[in-house]
Amino acid sequence: MPTRAGVLEAAEKIATILPPTPLLPVTIGEVQSWVKAEVLQPVGAFKIRGAWHRLTALDADERAAGVVAVSSGNHAQGVAWAAKRLGIRATIVMPHDAPQVKLDATKALGAEIVLYQRPGEDRDAVAAGIIAERGGTLVHAFGDPWVIEGQGSAGIEITAQLGREPTRILACCGGGGLTAGLVLACPDAQVHPVEPVGWDMVGQAMRSGDIVSAAPDAPKTICDALQPLATKLVNLAVLMNHAAPGLVVSDDEVRAAQRFAFSQLRLVVEPGGAAALAAALAGKVALDGHTVIMLTGGNTDPASFAATLASS
Amino acid sequence: MPTRAGVLEAAEKIATILPPTPLLPVTIGEVQSWVKAEVLQPVGAFKIRGAWHRLTALDADERAAGVVAVSSGNHAQGVAWAAKRLGIRATIVMPHDAPQVKLDATKALGAEIVLYQRPGEDRDAVAAGIIAERGGTLVHAFGDPWVIEGQGSAGIEITAQLGREPTRILACCGGGGLTAGLVLACPDAQVHPVEPVGWDMVGQAMRSGDIVSAAPDAPKTICDALQPLATKLVNLAVLMNHAAPGLVVSDDEVRAAQRFAFSQLRLVVEPGGAAALAAALAGKVALDGHTVIMLTGGNTDPASFAATLASS
Repeated sequence: MPTRAGVLEAAEKIATILPPTPLLPVTIGEVQSWVKAEVLQPVGAFKIRGAWHRLTALDADERAAGVVAVSSGNHAQGVAWAAKRLGIRATIVMPHDAPQVKLDATKALGAEIVLYQRPGEDRDAVAAGIIAERGGTLVHAFGDPWVIEGQGSAGIEITAQLGREPTRILACCGGGGLTAGLVLACPDAQVHPVEPVGWDMVGQAMRSGDIVSAAPDAPKTICDALQPLATKLVNLAVLMNHAAPGLVVSDDEVRAAQRFAFSQLRLVVEPGGAAALAAALAGKVALDGHTVIMLTGGNTDPASFAATLASS
Repeated sequence: MPTRAGVLEAAEKIATILPPTPLLPVTIGEVQSWVKAEVLQPVGAFKIRGAWHRLTALDADERAAGVVAVSSGNHAQGVAWAAKRLGIRATIVMPHDAPQVKLDATKALGAEIVLYQRPGEDRDAVAAGIIAERGGTLVHAFGDPWVIEGQGSAGIEITAQLGREPTRILACCGGGGLTAGLVLACPDAQVHPVEPVGWDMVGQAMRSGDIVSAAPDAPKTICDALQPLATKLVNLAVLMNHAAPGLVVSDDEVRAAQRFAFSQLRLVVEPGGAAALAAALAGKVALDGHTVIMLTGGNTDPASFAATLASS
């Protein structure tokens, strides 16, 4: 199980290779809150944290055998970045319809990419097949204790930057790796997972007390990074009774948040990375001067971003 | 005349109200250099520095009489932001064709806006007329010792963040306020002004040793923030024999830099704010591990930015 001690250790390790991402003031209505600009990480997303903590925990034999990951693009780049730095071979299973920028960037970092069909093909089975054939360690995108601890390092940075623990954190949520990490990092904060409508697998799991799978006819969402088939038990175990209630956002609310980040913060944020900001702008919870909104990723195709700027 | 002592004083004052903007790694070719992300200032541009240093130097009588500034938009917002904080009335003379986002943001900060026709009408004469009628202090966008010292505070921050003075700084340059400030802040660095083709009034002035005015038929440029009619003697006096040679960039080079900032840095940069990055990407000078590229402003209309993303 991931622990707070593990999060602190991850934060120390990550501080030696990555400077803290900026915590920037943001005014919403009359309230000044904060955004944690994880889009300014070298790979444009927080995923670099968990990947670094996981890969540096591998022993020499495990490193020699390589790593395998499954990802729509940001975890892919995090793992590829860490693997390149550590001289580890990385194979990444990605959906055929991942944004082109994410496919290109992952390849540019030297990883081997194996595509699968979404929906339909079971991406975990594809990864298991690769490991059965070649060996290697699976680095799960969210259901992994090291990955959870690594993502939590963002919460340690936030607390140092704010000079205190936040009252509330809004976290864009796919499978619940970041949210679980933040819960461990900031035990006194209200940490809300924010998910796309119809893809609130973490929110639903917390309410039901068990894993809930995405409906086969789940609606389309522009949040390509926030479409897990289900959360995992390791995430649910951390989140149950500790995370604040889940929030859901619509595609239109997400686009409005991307436009707000463009004009008010001068930051490029991808749809899934803007979910938490969307919840804040739509007034889904009360904000205060110690509320922190995670901007988790900024990898988006220029054409999609241009269309979002044009829509309003 | 502006002095290095004044720059250090400005940096101290500014540190009490604004956190340092991030200095972020950027890889160009095989070299890792740095960008100074002034687009992350509250008004989206470095101009807030000079405005704060100038307005806080006014005495009580001067504050009561208000300030008048001339600006295509970023200095306008810097002055309006500082004036609002200090309870000073601000009147800003802006070109009728300034980007709408800059007009709106300046108004939202409580400033009164007076429009002039560009080209044709003499904006300095419009400002002088307002001061003759109502009184008030002119806060020039670049030809002002306090403004120069204030802008130079960015160089003090850079030196602290880098742990040493940069070897080279590429600075987007309109009238030469920022460039002069950086020359004072970092006397051992090569500080290059970077200007749009046909609007290199600072580069030309440094070569000729005298003020040079823009040609009446100067080409159009997308860099709305970098179209001064001429530099001023106070700027030229600091820059002559101290700044490195001026560089010029084309609109296409600027657009390529905006796209690079979007995809590689996840930052929104306006045309004039991307001029220095454009020079770096186009290989106009050699880069090294202690080169700093100023990203000076990020206020741009969504439609223009979308068009830039689509062009390539």
